[in-house]
Amino acid sequence: MSNVSKELGKDKSQGGKPLSAEELRKVDAYWRACNYLCVGMLYLRANPLLREPLKPEHIKNRLLGHWGSDPGQSFIWVHLNRLIKKYDLDLIYLSGPGHGAPATLSNSYLEGVYSEVYPDKSEDVVGMQKFFKQFSFPGGIGSHCTPETPGSIHEGGELGYSLSHGFGAAFDNPDLIVTVVVGDGEAETGPLATSWHSNKFLNPVRDGAVLPILHLNGYKIANPTVLARITPEELEWMFKGYGWEPHVVEGDDPATMHQLMAGVMEDCVKEIRAIQKKARSAPKGTEPERPRWPMIILRSPKGWTCPKEIDGHKLEGSWRAHQMPILDPVTNPKHLKLLEKWMKSYKPEELFDDSGKLIAELKEMAPVGQRRITANPHANGGLLRKPMELPDFRDYAVKVEKPGQIEISPTDVLAHFLRDAMKKNMTSFRVFGPDETASNKLQVIYEGSHGKTWMAKMLPEDADGGDLSREGRVMEILSEHTLEGWFEGYVLTGRHGFFSTYESFVHIIDSMFNQHAKWLEKSKLELRWRAPISSINLLITSLVWRQDHNGFTHQDPGFLDVVTNKSPEVTRIYLPPDANCLLSVGDHCLRSSNYVNVIVADKALHLQYLNMEDAVTHCTKGIGIWDFASNDAGEEPDVVIACAGDIPTEEALAAVAILRERCADLKIRFVNVVDLFRLMPETEHPHGLSEREFDSLFTKDKPVIFNFHAYASLVHKLTYKRTNHENFHVRGYKEKGNINTPLELAILNQIDRFDLAIDVIDRVPRLQMTAAHTKEWLKGQIIEAVNYAHENGIDSQEIREWKWPL
Amino acid sequence: MSNVSKELGKDKSQGGKPLSAEELRKVDAYWRACNYLCVGMLYLRANPLLREPLKPEHIKNRLLGHWGSDPGQSFIWVHLNRLIKKYDLDLIYLSGPGHGAPATLSNSYLEGVYSEVYPDKSEDVVGMQKFFKQFSFPGGIGSHCTPETPGSIHEGGELGYSLSHGFGAAFDNPDLIVTVVVGDGEAETGPLATSWHSNKFLNPVRDGAVLPILHLNGYKIANPTVLARITPEELEWMFKGYGWEPHVVEGDDPATMHQLMAGVMEDCVKEIRAIQKKARSAPKGTEPERPRWPMIILRSPKGWTCPKEIDGHKLEGSWRAHQMPILDPVTNPKHLKLLEKWMKSYKPEELFDDSGKLIAELKEMAPVGQRRITANPHANGGLLRKPMELPDFRDYAVKVEKPGQIEISPTDVLAHFLRDAMKKNMTSFRVFGPDETASNKLQVIYEGSHGKTWMAKMLPEDADGGDLSREGRVMEILSEHTLEGWFEGYVLTGRHGFFSTYESFVHIIDSMFNQHAKWLEKSKLELRWRAPISSINLLITSLVWRQDHNGFTHQDPGFLDVVTNKSPEVTRIYLPPDANCLLSVGDHCLRSSNYVNVIVADKALHLQYLNMEDAVTHCTKGIGIWDFASNDAGEEPDVVIACAGDIPTEEALAAVAILRERCADLKIRFVNVVDLFRLMPETEHPHGLSEREFDSLFTKDKPVIFNFHAYASLVHKLTYKRTNHENFHVRGYKEKGNINTPLELAILNQIDRFDLAIDVIDRVPRLQMTAAHTKEWLKGQIIEAVNYAHENGIDSQEIREWKWPL
Repeated sequence: MSNVSKELGKDKSQGGKPLSAEELRKVDAYWRACNYLCVGMLYLRANPLLREPLKPEHIKNRLLGHWGSDPGQSFIWVHLNRLIKKYDLDLIYLSGPGHGAPATLSNSYLEGVYSEVYPDKSEDVVGMQKFFKQFSFPGGIGSHCTPETPGSIHEGGELGYSLSHGFGAAFDNPDLIVTVVVGDGEAETGPLATSWHSNKFLNPVRDGAVLPILHLNGYKIANPTVLARITPEELEWMFKGYGWEPHVVEGDDPATMHQLMAGVMEDCVKEIRAIQKKARSAPKGTEPERPRWPMIILRSPKGWTCPKEIDGHKLEGSWRAHQMPILDPVTNPKHLKLLEKWMKSYKPEELFDDSGKLIAELKEMAPVGQRRITANPHANGGLLRKPMELPDFRDYAVKVEKPGQIEISPTDVLAHFLRDAMKKNMTSFRVFGPDETASNKLQVIYEGSHGKTWMAKMLPEDADGGDLSREGRVMEILSEHTLEGWFEGYVLTGRHGFFSTYESFVHIIDSMFNQHAKWLEKSKLELRWRAPISSINLLITSLVWRQDHNGFTHQDPGFLDVVTNKSPEVTRIYLPPDANCLLSVGDHCLRSSNYVNVIVADKALHLQYLNMEDAVTHCTKGIGIWDFASNDAGEEPDVVIACAGDIPTEEALAAVAILRERCADLKIRFVNVVDLFRLMPETEHPHGLSEREFDSLFTKDKPVIFNFHAYASLVHKLTYKRTNHENFHVRGYKEKGNINTPLELAILNQIDRFDLAIDVIDRVPRLQMTAAHTKEWLKGQIIEAVNYAHENGIDSQEIREWKWPL
Repeated sequence: MSNVSKELGKDKSQGGKPLSAEELRKVDAYWRACNYLCVGMLYLRANPLLREPLKPEHIKNRLLGHWGSDPGQSFIWVHLNRLIKKYDLDLIYLSGPGHGAPATLSNSYLEGVYSEVYPDKSEDVVGMQKFFKQFSFPGGIGSHCTPETPGSIHEGGELGYSLSHGFGAAFDNPDLIVTVVVGDGEAETGPLATSWHSNKFLNPVRDGAVLPILHLNGYKIANPTVLARITPEELEWMFKGYGWEPHVVEGDDPATMHQLMAGVMEDCVKEIRAIQKKARSAPKGTEPERPRWPMIILRSPKGWTCPKEIDGHKLEGSWRAHQMPILDPVTNPKHLKLLEKWMKSYKPEELFDDSGKLIAELKEMAPVGQRRITANPHANGGLLRKPMELPDFRDYAVKVEKPGQIEISPTDVLAHFLRDAMKKNMTSFRVFGPDETASNKLQVIYEGSHGKTWMAKMLPEDADGGDLSREGRVMEILSEHTLEGWFEGYVLTGRHGFFSTYESFVHIIDSMFNQHAKWLEKSKLELRWRAPISSINLLITSLVWRQDHNGFTHQDPGFLDVVTNKSPEVTRIYLPPDANCLLSVGDHCLRSSNYVNVIVADKALHLQYLNMEDAVTHCTKGIGIWDFASNDAGEEPDVVIACAGDIPTEEALAAVAILRERCADLKIRFVNVVDLFRLMPETEHPHGLSEREFDSLFTKDKPVIFNFHAYASLVHKLTYKRTNHENFHVRGYKEKGNINTPLELAILNQIDRFDLAIDVIDRVPRLQMTAAHTKEWLKGQIIEAVNYAHENGIDSQEIREWKWPL
């Protein structure tokens, strides 16, 4: 135990026994009620209070659920309740272990919250029966802390994110304590293993506290856990190494454990308060130092309090207690008896009154109102969310008098807007990025954000351009998992954020995106009581097309494919073609709620096309004809040249410029797509164009050359039902590249101007005769461009540079 | 420093200075040669040995590369060389820090290996000039340890996998030492953070050693690293907590550092040998205990030995030395001078002879032949790979006399084959799975594998069904990242493996898959000197359709979309419809090389269709008509019912059974797809069907109802160019589901028999009149099925069960 807690320990009353006999009795009774409800929801569909002898027909037909961590989690919960009441704590609880929802559900029910949210699950025998039956039952609720679970901001269907979610919740919530129960299974995952370092990014002055409780119950589905099988010294070293002050609570005798836990948990709360008080009462100008925050290691048996043995095999304290400790009570009368005996060991008749409600003296053990953990508004963050105050994005517009004349970095322009957005939301907006904010040309945000958050050691040289500070609001750590976890936790508790990352490495969080999108869909479509939360805004930059020196490993635009597999109700993809469009899209995304907005925009210098007014119009429509690049003047064109993405747009325009010069009578329509889902049928995505609209843009029968940012197949996936789809010829990334100049990389994948012009010539019948010479010239340009690049290491200015003709 | 190393330290000669003055001079000179080459490749395209004054035209036009970790890595390398020679070590080197390839490249060049592999990069002035120019240059090589780099098995384009790759290399290679340099940037990633625990899975008797060297040079692109800014005590605690014995080498004075490093590294080698000797000489039957393996923390300045300052800013030892320390030597004459002075500080004239070759006395410092790190055959694992010895998979066949009569778990059948495959390859085959091998019904493998690898603490109760042992060959840890990393390292060094995982969570390794597929593509298509390695065999099981109790978070079949974005040269996807097909596919995959084979097969009980002979024929073709289910008898059918995936096949057959009974005159053709890429055009994938073949299966104009395992859009993606594509009506997963029975989940996503039959009725014009009644009945079945499930928690036997009519 730490020195700090040892000292605090001196206060302990009753000779090291913080609980009086009466308190102990009541705490234990409340815990038994939790445990009873957990077993009930795992097994019963009738006879919820066992008021008649247990029979096979009371048992669910299919037994699906997990007992393993439930009693340990409920044990933690009852001790949290005690301290919430004693110290009026504002506290939420994140359940890390997979499938441990019964602990949260039973507590929510006992607190009365569950019945408030779902009135048919009332606090009586009838309600309890429904409450039991629905669990892990077809048409009912899952065995994770799904969105349906009051008080949950962390489902944990996939493991590894509890702690980063917890930190996200704590940032900028100075009075909040976020308890995170970390399962020793999930502790083996990579994302969890590095998220312990989040304590280097938590400022005790402005942020709340995270109290991690490593629940070391020893087993996963079928194996012991690593952390349960290293030496106690190693375990302590590890957490001290991670910068925490570990407190161990270990044992299996409930009475002893209650006293231990009551003492340790109270010590931890006092330590947290002492750390905060010290940091917050320091003289103005004092830089807070990184404290060693307390954490708890709870070593309790897997499936604690279930039968010790079954058929001669160890049950409590073994992997056999991970899921259903008794597998066949319906068919095995002996096991049915065992189950009944087990359930009765909690003495339900002492805990619930005649009506089936928790008895009054235990009811009093729970906090009241919004202090009840499952009623805490931080866990239904939309309730607390206020829209961002935003500057007028038009004030950051690039002055574009004529299209295609000036070059600028789009992300740099956006960054100025974000910097001032930051200044207006200094307690409710954060920017996230894996060591790449500056690399992504967003560093001007630091001017508005007090730089980057850094609670680890500072060195004198950091003053020279390090941009680090204790108050920094840009979060950078080289872990996309941790950042995404922080971000999700931050928005789930009612705030706003913005994440930028290299395109190819956004795949690292594919699965986190999937899980969050699923959470959002359920919350949005099925749960009216969950108020809308801010969107996850994900800027994908350092794009595949500008990874010329990073090479093949950094080329992968496939995240968009992953996104399009998720529900149209919660996914949005934007490919703004220039800086003013990016501003318009950025503003829109920051105002939105309940989406994952994916924005694709490069950081390098690019030509600009639309003035602010036109950009807003274009982005509002999401797709449109660019008149300046078209010469079909209201007639049917010979060909449609379409594009989505800034670099493909630049190449497509260059192709048009070439064709307009060399094939002057060719009637070209130029279509640009910002909002990718406009391509989908309106029946399949709320943003989809109607057939009529789509045909009016793309014609019913003319060739369409579509230059796309990502894999070409994605455009086909979105458009295959369209009338003119068979004339769609799509270019995109096709896994060609290594170390190349920008133009050479475009050429390798045939999204370059020359190949596009050839595509047009090949698809407009009359050009095949008239433009044969042009085609030869185009092929020559391609060869010349590659040769020049290999000789000089850069693109030929002459070949590559172009401006739209004024 | 550990006690062990302190004791060994007593041996140190020359009063704590392990190197004689002469050795020190030569070690340092060799290191200077490395550093000189590193700077050369970053900057120069001409004048490689600075034999004329440095001018702007000698400098590359675009400066792209990273200096930061190069000198530290070369420093490690020269000390490894010393010990390889002294102790005749079999040793490879994995470079973890991103973009640190110059260190490996320069050493490969000095060892002579580079010129052997690439003769035009000869060991003379002309060769050196080419060697410099190609680096990070269009058409040249990348700045990571790409496949083109001799001695590399770890590219590190994406960070986080160096240590797990290293362990994979060490398993079953008892004499090998795998040095893994871990960057302090990558150390922040989740995958790296948990991979330190790999030491709980390494057996000192049968496995080699991993010597991690945490290279703490303090900075990432734009930030300090977390591990460099915690206290030295925390750092030591952390690694002791992870189970390592850390040795610190810290400083910046080269002479002092050489002595320190020589001593510490020799201590580490001796510790490794002592651990191995103790474990290997123990009396037979002694269980080896988990040792505390040594690791090194090298704290050296970022960009060590570059200029201390530039324009008044700190350079060496700051983030400014991460990439190019001097940014503008071409345009800034002062900086050009600074660069020249820097390069000359290494005294190239003392290091290279007139011809440009390393002088003989330094040449002698490197090991010779295959002991040269970059010539070690373990790093070109295909050279060492022997095909697996496999039992005849036909011996494990399920006896299928008639299709659709018996139910069995396909993965359980496969497991028996894998068990015996394991027995025949007890030093070159491992099975990987995240705590799910048993859950995935593969546990019979334990019978052949000595159970599961476990070097952490054992408890008495483990004897009761724990299946853990020191010799276990099934690897389970709850980290998909670690497992995939181990697996990749294992096959990259010439061995074989098999990975099973829950379908939805395979997305966790999306990005690792991408990186490995890219590595394979380059190796296979462009590098003849790299011998083929075994395929990554990835069994996706616990499928979306049988996640009925895990719910919505566990439903995601989108990994296949990610796979189809990668090169057709290295990707294969198989969806065997039953156990015999799974056996045939499994055998094929284990024999293959240079692919990622993705196999989709469920673990639950399923109907069986093909006898072994038919299964082999069917899988060899990859796609085919199932005669028993078809009644078109050589004529054009009214409808094609196609399917891919075991569960969709089962539902599609049930639909056929219904239609055959109720619409007797309907001519149905039944097509099953095992090899998904057969659907692609032959021009785009080596497995693609020709147009003629495709049309002969799917007709040119009849409706095709395609029941697909994953997202329907993937079938469209693969088939949109096909003649009959517009008549393809594909059913697949569409993000509908929660807690459902199997049939209910199928119904929600409309892949069930009833909806398929309705689809057929809706698409065959004449049925719309005649089958109206049947359609009503089908709709009624759907409602009845869902109602039954919600009432009883299971599917109605009557509605769900069926057999193919005999």
